[in-house]
Amino acid sequence: MIQNSNLKRSWTTRRDEKNERMQKADPHLEGKYVATDHITEVLETLIQPKDRVVLEGNNQKQASFLSTALASVNSDIVKELHMIMSSISRPEHLDIFEKGIANRIDFAFAGPQSLRVAQMIDDGQMEMGNIHTYLELYGRLFIDLIPSIALVAADKADEAGNLYTGANTEETPTIIEATAFRQGIVIVQVNEQVEELPRVDIPASWVDVIVVAKDPYQLEALFTRNPRHISEIQILMAMITIRGVYEKHQVQSLNHGIGFNTAAIELLLPTYGESLGLRGKICQHWAVNPHPTLIPAIESGWIDSIHCFGGERGMEEYISARSDVFFLGRDGTLRSNRTLSQMAGQYAVDLFIGSTLQMDYEGNSSTVTKGRLAGFGGAPNMGHDPKGRRHSTPAWLDMMKPEETLVRGKKLVVQMMETHQQGNNPVFVERLDAIDVAKEANLDIPPVMIYGEDVTHLVTEEGVAYLYKTNSIAERKEAIAAVAGVTPAGQEQSLKQKERLRSQGIVAYPEDLGIRRSDAKRSLLAAQSVEDLVTWSDDLYDPPQQFRSYWS
Amino acid sequence: MIQNSNLKRSWTTRRDEKNERMQKADPHLEGKYVATDHITEVLETLIQPKDRVVLEGNNQKQASFLSTALASVNSDIVKELHMIMSSISRPEHLDIFEKGIANRIDFAFAGPQSLRVAQMIDDGQMEMGNIHTYLELYGRLFIDLIPSIALVAADKADEAGNLYTGANTEETPTIIEATAFRQGIVIVQVNEQVEELPRVDIPASWVDVIVVAKDPYQLEALFTRNPRHISEIQILMAMITIRGVYEKHQVQSLNHGIGFNTAAIELLLPTYGESLGLRGKICQHWAVNPHPTLIPAIESGWIDSIHCFGGERGMEEYISARSDVFFLGRDGTLRSNRTLSQMAGQYAVDLFIGSTLQMDYEGNSSTVTKGRLAGFGGAPNMGHDPKGRRHSTPAWLDMMKPEETLVRGKKLVVQMMETHQQGNNPVFVERLDAIDVAKEANLDIPPVMIYGEDVTHLVTEEGVAYLYKTNSIAERKEAIAAVAGVTPAGQEQSLKQKERLRSQGIVAYPEDLGIRRSDAKRSLLAAQSVEDLVTWSDDLYDPPQQFRSYWS
Repeated sequence: MIQNSNLKRSWTTRRDEKNERMQKADPHLEGKYVATDHITEVLETLIQPKDRVVLEGNNQKQASFLSTALASVNSDIVKELHMIMSSISRPEHLDIFEKGIANRIDFAFAGPQSLRVAQMIDDGQMEMGNIHTYLELYGRLFIDLIPSIALVAADKADEAGNLYTGANTEETPTIIEATAFRQGIVIVQVNEQVEELPRVDIPASWVDVIVVAKDPYQLEALFTRNPRHISEIQILMAMITIRGVYEKHQVQSLNHGIGFNTAAIELLLPTYGESLGLRGKICQHWAVNPHPTLIPAIESGWIDSIHCFGGERGMEEYISARSDVFFLGRDGTLRSNRTLSQMAGQYAVDLFIGSTLQMDYEGNSSTVTKGRLAGFGGAPNMGHDPKGRRHSTPAWLDMMKPEETLVRGKKLVVQMMETHQQGNNPVFVERLDAIDVAKEANLDIPPVMIYGEDVTHLVTEEGVAYLYKTNSIAERKEAIAAVAGVTPAGQEQSLKQKERLRSQGIVAYPEDLGIRRSDAKRSLLAAQSVEDLVTWSDDLYDPPQQFRSYWS
Repeated sequence: MIQNSNLKRSWTTRRDEKNERMQKADPHLEGKYVATDHITEVLETLIQPKDRVVLEGNNQKQASFLSTALASVNSDIVKELHMIMSSISRPEHLDIFEKGIANRIDFAFAGPQSLRVAQMIDDGQMEMGNIHTYLELYGRLFIDLIPSIALVAADKADEAGNLYTGANTEETPTIIEATAFRQGIVIVQVNEQVEELPRVDIPASWVDVIVVAKDPYQLEALFTRNPRHISEIQILMAMITIRGVYEKHQVQSLNHGIGFNTAAIELLLPTYGESLGLRGKICQHWAVNPHPTLIPAIESGWIDSIHCFGGERGMEEYISARSDVFFLGRDGTLRSNRTLSQMAGQYAVDLFIGSTLQMDYEGNSSTVTKGRLAGFGGAPNMGHDPKGRRHSTPAWLDMMKPEETLVRGKKLVVQMMETHQQGNNPVFVERLDAIDVAKEANLDIPPVMIYGEDVTHLVTEEGVAYLYKTNSIAERKEAIAAVAGVTPAGQEQSLKQKERLRSQGIVAYPEDLGIRRSDAKRSLLAAQSVEDLVTWSDDLYDPPQQFRSYWS
């Protein structure tokens, strides 16, 4: 049964389409380069209505010149685009929807714009595809969200069009690979054109159009936490975590998210951690951004290796001087890679630790709260037990339930937060706002960040709950309540229940871990200010201006 | 509390070590090139005892010249290496252990060498690290298995050292990225040096040493299945799968593993699938190798896109002529990428379908059987429900249990196999051999390929069991038994039990799906021979010699 040869068709429609568009743009191009002030016309020539457009922008690095240019195209010509973005971060990301240039979105994170996103969906200006984690969004770029256009950012390009992404390689190579190899059009903004690149991060043959941007791409110092703002409650929780989780399970590889809680842990390793004799035994291998608060631990010889999702402003020179610890190119600057670090953070580390705005009584948590469609970035990817994992480490094996025939370990997923949020609202709620948000925004499922069944440990200022030891949802609820303090969830529980859980080793309070609450002092922090971090770094760390204003 | 400045140390030990080794090798180098017959000496110069060495070799592409060279080094100089390999495939991969050149292994797959691996571990010649899936092994290259040395293969290199990997990019960029950016040494064998590359797959600044190999790297035609060998039982199972799984759940994106079962599905899409009116409704997006048996479905307009883990011998010209379907470089040849395709296969497709050698009564399966330490490659990664997934598709949502508050979907994981294996052994066993293998080989956990809780569908020649509908392990066991035929597991079950499961829609037999067993004929295959595939391909497919010998 052989094919009907009448059904002949063209198999090069994508390539022909690309060639046609590129030819129309040709008058504007010199080699691959387009003049800075011609970019809007070039976008109007290269982008067609209903195109799938990936606009680079994760939580740190933004293709800000290209997003501004896109927001200024004539919406009679360029319209109804399907936008794919890791992060909805900048005002013009939403302006393009208000102007009708785009009408559909698939994204991973919308922190700063989450209120406006929810409003625009409500108003029908934006059609919602899906909320993703980074890695599944990248995966779809090769399957059912293959881009027609990529708008991305790099530091430098040479005449041939090779790219140097510097410390902030991030997701650029993945977006470009998905676009370039399916005959999409890759448009890159660079901060400058140079004769010779420090190194090549992306080869010229993957790139179609380059524009030197008016200003360097936007780069947020998102992972910088000023030690001055770390509270003694956070220090107490950090001590509980180091003693009750990291030491107990011999956690050797890990990811820390953003936040003051984990910054406190980082700053206690060289002091409290050292006093416990843990250097070289825990926390040697990291998948993490280059947090300035890691400097004292690095300098004290705690850390063997750090693979980074992205860079961090002001850390460039320090990183270059610490080539034994970071991934650097031959030129001596950081090579980050968001895709590979997310992959490693999912599959190759013992522990993920994060925080949340709400947790229900069964341990499900979400940062999506009423009126805010925030998304989660990488948290669901790293904050779950990857069932495809087959290798073992001591910490992973410690989660084993030995009574099972087909024993296996589990990833350590730690939620760490104070029992009350700002405004004195309990973090523990009977029902997540996410359930109603899903209904209002017409989502297929409630946007849960981390599911209760995946949380192995819960740390609050009350103590630590070893949820992996519980044998039923009812027992998990009890264990959560036992560290929920004076919230309604906590107050329902009797002292007797708490004592039972404690005697079974399902919860531990500071005194059970040999921690005196009165020891949780700011003086225990290895650095108490940004200035201290600079001193630790041998003056190699160069904090952005906004963190210098605290010096006095 | 600022650092003790007496603790000054060097932060460039890795870089200094690399420079020192490279300087010793310098007399052998012209630019990055070493003469073909000097490679053994160069390896002896660059590799030190106890180094962590990644040797490229997945199930298709092998750095065979470098592995042969490594097996010939002086084991007084180069010894006790820690080898990291996706696949243990070639005899010399084990010779290096017999000779003491290496003594520790971390790997993902050992199909052809699985007997000898088990024996060598038993004899103490090989110390076992872990069995991995591809993606977690790649992840660890950035965390706690960072390589000192990479030995990899590419098609071509130019004078500067840029690499062209051609259709078989596979895992090369990932291995090189992990090594190059942590001051490891990257050694590449190429088939030829050329003046100008068709395209650049890997930039020169990531590469240290290049050698033109004596022979081209080994490349297996692993994913080629001769339609002549597809049996009518396999055709029946394929009909059951198309009707009872793909159509029922509107499966739009998927991965097919290797094997005759799935080859039968591919060859039935343009015939049986067409008669059901399913073209354009199912199976549009694939993460899969370029199977020759996909040609009729591609030619009939079934398939929108295919992203490939690797290439397939003989498919090169056909792929180049079908640029609307495959990922191709500007030069017109395939760009594969094992890491990105595994990521997409994990997170971005509706369905994974695979086969196994053993399944226990609860649905756990393994290809590790007595005396064979085979490993699993990518199956556990794609064959589980990725809990970090947050986007939805119709098929994924179909797995939802609507009674739950926090509803979510599930990945479709299908196991498809005849109830008896070769030698008439039942595939269903009370206890997996893997449990004893784990004890004998001193593994931390039994090497299970796919866990029963992740299997949503089981297809045999008896019918399909919808395991995702079962509400307890007991009910899952019943559903499995209902399609286990005349194996002991199947024979224990009463007709009444079967009827109950059938009436509840938990199992379906061919007659329930409107399939007549007598229709399962070879004439239903869109191609019945390799010759037919060539005809379908407009003579673009060029089968390797071993598949031509069947033509008569």
